[in-house]
Amino acid sequence: MKIVALAGGVGGAKLAHGLAQILPPEDLTVIVNTGDDFEHLGLSISPDLDTVCYTLAGLANFETGWGRADESWNAIANVKKLGGPNWFNLGDRDLGIHLERTRRLKLGQSLSQITRDFCQAWGVGPTVLPMSDGAVRTIVSTDEGDLPFQEYFVHRRCEPKVRGFRFEGIETAEPAPGVVEALQAADAIILCPSNPWVSIDPILQVIQLQSTVPHPPPIVAVSPIIGGQTVKGPAAKMYAELGIEPSALAVARHYQNLLRGFVLDTVDAELQEKIPIPTLVTNTLMKDLTDRATLAQAVLHFIRNLS
Amino acid sequence: MKIVALAGGVGGAKLAHGLAQILPPEDLTVIVNTGDDFEHLGLSISPDLDTVCYTLAGLANFETGWGRADESWNAIANVKKLGGPNWFNLGDRDLGIHLERTRRLKLGQSLSQITRDFCQAWGVGPTVLPMSDGAVRTIVSTDEGDLPFQEYFVHRRCEPKVRGFRFEGIETAEPAPGVVEALQAADAIILCPSNPWVSIDPILQVIQLQSTVPHPPPIVAVSPIIGGQTVKGPAAKMYAELGIEPSALAVARHYQNLLRGFVLDTVDAELQEKIPIPTLVTNTLMKDLTDRATLAQAVLHFIRNLS
Repeated sequence: MKIVALAGGVGGAKLAHGLAQILPPEDLTVIVNTGDDFEHLGLSISPDLDTVCYTLAGLANFETGWGRADESWNAIANVKKLGGPNWFNLGDRDLGIHLERTRRLKLGQSLSQITRDFCQAWGVGPTVLPMSDGAVRTIVSTDEGDLPFQEYFVHRRCEPKVRGFRFEGIETAEPAPGVVEALQAADAIILCPSNPWVSIDPILQVIQLQSTVPHPPPIVAVSPIIGGQTVKGPAAKMYAELGIEPSALAVARHYQNLLRGFVLDTVDAELQEKIPIPTLVTNTLMKDLTDRATLAQAVLHFIRNLS
Repeated sequence: MKIVALAGGVGGAKLAHGLAQILPPEDLTVIVNTGDDFEHLGLSISPDLDTVCYTLAGLANFETGWGRADESWNAIANVKKLGGPNWFNLGDRDLGIHLERTRRLKLGQSLSQITRDFCQAWGVGPTVLPMSDGAVRTIVSTDEGDLPFQEYFVHRRCEPKVRGFRFEGIETAEPAPGVVEALQAADAIILCPSNPWVSIDPILQVIQLQSTVPHPPPIVAVSPIIGGQTVKGPAAKMYAELGIEPSALAVARHYQNLLRGFVLDTVDAELQEKIPIPTLVTNTLMKDLTDRATLAQAVLHFIRNLS
């Protein structure tokens, strides 16, 4: 069964890692949001792509879910000491990746080509694709004005109240090489438990499923909201600020007619009856490696039964 | 006594540090070679400037003389792991400086302004000036063709045979703000024990002493060659390849009519009689902090007796 997973950062990376533990590498393609990408200290940084790759490579910091394990912070400490930008922390090992990616991008290489080579160097089996090689930049409209995503997310710690989102460049951004082929070959598409607004929506807008895959395989989403809260990140806060009660139900409605199935946590079992498509109620909180594989296995089983 | 010291990397930094231990900060200006500067991994790197600043700030690696003490190498290890350029090692702490300098240069700030701010952040008392804010790039002509300095020095480990040198951009490079003023106010100018060909010559060509200071104060050089060898770096090898026997005498002749006095090591005492200007024969090998201050003190004493 060929699976395409759409993923943002930590939650998406964890489920992708679960799937990678089960599926043969050639049967899993992870398409990753690049709307969070930004330039900082002259470096081209792709936070979601790195989180997914680090996680699949076993290089991620298991405590935080993002960044590198066994990381040091000597470069950024010196930037700060000299009065440079101090709001975005870059670990030293992580910095090596940004330096090399930036160098290669400046040589005219594509983000997808660079990602493929990095994954090969790290021994990552599944295919990891940025959603696009073109620049897409998520802008968060807030009560304090429009903010580039990292400015909102890291610098302002998600404090400004959200009014909406736009994705600069999305109209002209083509799916990265391999994205359309993977979608057309897929037996199922999984929307990972990532932020619907700023992780999955930009991917969906780039890949344009309706035209890319007119007769799509089953599409299943895993709710990133458990008991009305997000495990990580501002998805629940975003729903609330946009006037929608944050819940797994809100996520299911978010994806509307796209889905053939929906996965929600056992704590949200009572929402099941309000969701008019097949649901899987299971433990979706991935606290350790086993949780990741268990959830992935359950989702795959659910998909098989849908078909 | 106001002193201006012209310096390249490690040897120059050590004597500058000795002078800084003795002179009030306002009486010492160090003018540093920037011909070795280069761009690597998208970063603007100023090796001599950093060696001088790190040394004066007490941040330098005492074993190597260059780079940072207590350094880690996690970023560059990851660049290498991904197949990136592996011939120039950049420590993590060091990298922070390059990132912040590059960021500020791209904002249009000058190298001299950035250096002043960095020195302030590090508590460096003496004034450290790049010879110029304009780009000067040392090119080493070799039997294998022209090589940018770091390519020759680091990548090729000084292996190609030297035929000459040129300094790209030197005709249009203006002395950095403060350089001319410091030279005109100086009671003496010290050519530190740095490479005459690629450290001191570019500075001399930029500052144009004849026109800048028509009636110069005493100029004294300290030989970087001891017993026919350099403590560090390729100066002796360069002399030999250019058909000149490497020696303190060759250094004294190199600077020709510029000097009022010359400082050479005790092991070279017998060369003294061949040098037609006043000489100081003393221990010039700076193995520890005390050696630096002792040599600086001896040079200052020598200068006072010249006047």
